Amino acid sequence: MKINNLDDGLALHTDYYILNMMYTYWKKGINKQRAVFECYFRHNPFKNGYAVFAGLQQIVSYLQNLHFSDSDIDYLRANGEFDEGFLQYLKNITFSCDVRSVVEGDLVFANEPIFQVEGPLDQCSLVETAVLSILNYQILIATKAARIKSAAGTDTLLEFGSRRAQELEAGLWGARAAYIAGFDATSNVRAGKLFKIPVAGTHAHALVQFYQNDYDAFKAYAQTHHDCTFLVDTYDTLKSGVPSAIKVAKEMGDKISFQGVRIDSGDMAYISKRVREKLDDAGYTDTKIVASNDLDETTIQNLKMQGAKIDTWGVGTRLITGYNQPALGAVYKMVAIEDNYGNMLDTLKLSSNVEKISTPGQKQVWRITNSKKDNKSEGDYITLKDEQPNKLSQLHMFHPQYTYISKTITDFKARPILQKIFENGHLVYDLPSLEQIRTYCRQNLDSLWDEYKRDLNPQNYPVDLSQRLYDHKKHYIEYVHQWVKNMGTVD
Amino acid sequence: MKINNLDDGLALHTDYYILNMMYTYWKKGINKQRAVFECYFRHNPFKNGYAVFAGLQQIVSYLQNLHFSDSDIDYLRANGEFDEGFLQYLKNITFSCDVRSVVEGDLVFANEPIFQVEGPLDQCSLVETAVLSILNYQILIATKAARIKSAAGTDTLLEFGSRRAQELEAGLWGARAAYIAGFDATSNVRAGKLFKIPVAGTHAHALVQFYQNDYDAFKAYAQTHHDCTFLVDTYDTLKSGVPSAIKVAKEMGDKISFQGVRIDSGDMAYISKRVREKLDDAGYTDTKIVASNDLDETTIQNLKMQGAKIDTWGVGTRLITGYNQPALGAVYKMVAIEDNYGNMLDTLKLSSNVEKISTPGQKQVWRITNSKKDNKSEGDYITLKDEQPNKLSQLHMFHPQYTYISKTITDFKARPILQKIFENGHLVYDLPSLEQIRTYCRQNLDSLWDEYKRDLNPQNYPVDLSQRLYDHKKHYIEYVHQWVKNMGTVD
Repeated sequence: MKINNLDDGLALHTDYYILNMMYTYWKKGINKQRAVFECYFRHNPFKNGYAVFAGLQQIVSYLQNLHFSDSDIDYLRANGEFDEGFLQYLKNITFSCDVRSVVEGDLVFANEPIFQVEGPLDQCSLVETAVLSILNYQILIATKAARIKSAAGTDTLLEFGSRRAQELEAGLWGARAAYIAGFDATSNVRAGKLFKIPVAGTHAHALVQFYQNDYDAFKAYAQTHHDCTFLVDTYDTLKSGVPSAIKVAKEMGDKISFQGVRIDSGDMAYISKRVREKLDDAGYTDTKIVASNDLDETTIQNLKMQGAKIDTWGVGTRLITGYNQPALGAVYKMVAIEDNYGNMLDTLKLSSNVEKISTPGQKQVWRITNSKKDNKSEGDYITLKDEQPNKLSQLHMFHPQYTYISKTITDFKARPILQKIFENGHLVYDLPSLEQIRTYCRQNLDSLWDEYKRDLNPQNYPVDLSQRLYDHKKHYIEYVHQWVKNMGTVD
Repeated sequence: MKINNLDDGLALHTDYYILNMMYTYWKKGINKQRAVFECYFRHNPFKNGYAVFAGLQQIVSYLQNLHFSDSDIDYLRANGEFDEGFLQYLKNITFSCDVRSVVEGDLVFANEPIFQVEGPLDQCSLVETAVLSILNYQILIATKAARIKSAAGTDTLLEFGSRRAQELEAGLWGARAAYIAGFDATSNVRAGKLFKIPVAGTHAHALVQFYQNDYDAFKAYAQTHHDCTFLVDTYDTLKSGVPSAIKVAKEMGDKISFQGVRIDSGDMAYISKRVREKLDDAGYTDTKIVASNDLDETTIQNLKMQGAKIDTWGVGTRLITGYNQPALGAVYKMVAIEDNYGNMLDTLKLSSNVEKISTPGQKQVWRITNSKKDNKSEGDYITLKDEQPNKLSQLHMFHPQYTYISKTITDFKARPILQKIFENGHLVYDLPSLEQIRTYCRQNLDSLWDEYKRDLNPQNYPVDLSQRLYDHKKHYIEYVHQWVKNMGTVD
């Protein structure tokens, strides 16, 4: 939508400090020096054993449309910080980077690069904020959805979150992320249109309120729809809602398909069992019970343990906001930079928070599967970009912090998970359909041992550095520490 | 952005069950019967004593542009649920409702109507999802921002959340909500352009990584910017970062304004004190210390109690996601509907969850101020729409659940907080500037007693029903209960 009558592109959807840096780079003539930035997160969300990668389609669209509009430049000019030459330079920027990324539906883990931008220093910088916002949200929701799917098993899962989403677009892209990770449909019709996700939903309390009673409302609905799921808890589920639904279904006979009843409040475990009895007694053994009301993987598991008779779960707030951990915390760090002589130098960010120390150098992540063990994933192996683990006869994997934890693998395959998406700013990756992504996600989850998929206290999936990368990182940290130590004389 | 080459309007940003109901309404010829829907939330977010209303500007824009596009209709046609007559009807819908709303920057409280739509039943229904998503998010963030502002006092507050926002648009509108509630600037340049919010930010770790040392990086920045805040924690804040910043400032002299240093990691309380000493010793007593790193109202209070020497707070993740309660949970309920004879009937939604029972009838909310007590707010008084509390000589206020808690007020003024925004679909409200909204918010917060503004265990601000509304609600609940009780015979 147009806001304040200004055109609204996304080039300015960036943190101001990035523009300030780009200005320094440009003034100093280093703006086109080649850099590599990598994105990663430090902890799997929800203490989960893995995360589901999502967000690439939106990033592709963002990068393909990246340019500064006239009104963007006018705004920056009025702001007064930058000179005209720089503004003209911005105006003419076209995205020309290489991008490598994990593809949607693949699994990712903490502390491995999942998205990589290589190209002119200033362009790599410009995209940080938007790329992070997109990845942070969609990976979070896809992972939450995978957890819920794991609890729901083969039950149907409906995404109902739009009204509680943090802004309209979160409802839209969140619906897509949930579908990738195993949800079956969304209530958001716009997501249905734009992404071809099946849409679901029947009626709200308002319909019953209009007719002032369940029976008339269900009858009206049944007279105007073939497939009927009635919301039965407006007044009293067991005394009024379900009996009215059954009465209408009997009266309508073959004219409708009495697919379900939905319960949105009350003691779901108890009520669902009584509702099941009533439906069965009336001969509607195939009619499903749909439940909604602040559900998530924990409540679903709990209701199942209590023997609740629920076939379909409508999940909203707690999915679409990633309720119990609403931010993934992915970061975007420079790992290599061209020096004045055209050589690429690896870079490091030290920090007094140990876990904030980055791993230098442009990397690749290899997913190691063991052909002796059902081709299940044995771990991820992070190397410098030019290493070729497939050429090794055996792989020595060890934990990057607890290096005494190690294993040696033979008969392995190593699949690189970072794929080329853009080359010199041109899209070189065929975006798969959403159905393909969803199937791919299912396959990836199947290739993961159950121990890593438990929703509580999963085993740590190994994410290891190659010996070369490990030595490289250690060397850099020592080098910089030494340098800092000798620096007391700076003033 | 264009997604899958489809035009992307917001009419379909609605839950599918709404379209299904609209279809029944249309088929049954009741789609144009007049209805009233109200929006409210059941608990103040973050256990706060109040909430800050925001979101109206975006809703106005959404409603003004509400229409079904050709591709929307094509999508619904392909979906197969609706007949052609209905699709043509949708195509021609133009928004014609009355809208009353609290205005941005005003305070709102749990269980009072904050947004009201009156008009044809189907149009009132259509807007539910988008209106809720917008209000749920922006009220949440404005309220979180007000809490943070309260902790920060007169310190400067910078909104740094975009990279962690749940989708790009949340970063944008969240920045605006934060500004309304007292933040001083945002890092999101797009928010700066579209909403005229001051933007802030200097440089990231990447600049220092490029130059491989603090001094060269700060020098380059200082040679290209007049106002300088240096990020000092890339390698070692006290040994390298701050001494380098001071050295550069001394060398540059009057050519720059050495405004600040920023710390983004480590023990903020300890480090900030040492940094302050170093800056003071060097004569830079006016140079500010900026802190960022997962801050919120609790960490800010805590750091202040420890005597941290921090002047400016950059707040990101925990603000922009409403981290500790990422959903407000506002709902949108039918409160009145026209019957077949043209009379308006009030409606009620019962529920086995007591707090989910709605209050029937179209309402107004009056903010009661006591002219004897500095015009501070005494409470909110909810009436049926046609009541005029200003004509009363005294007001008897009592708690709607604990009715023995009551007080009688004389010398009061009653200000209606729901204002007319749309009349028959036409905007009749002059949208104020963002600065006006921000000032208005500050005034409203000033008119609230401190007891309601404590961030921990605030007093309950009275939100009371008028005697007439209370009797009305009781009567309706009894009526419906009686009706449900007599209904065992439905099948």
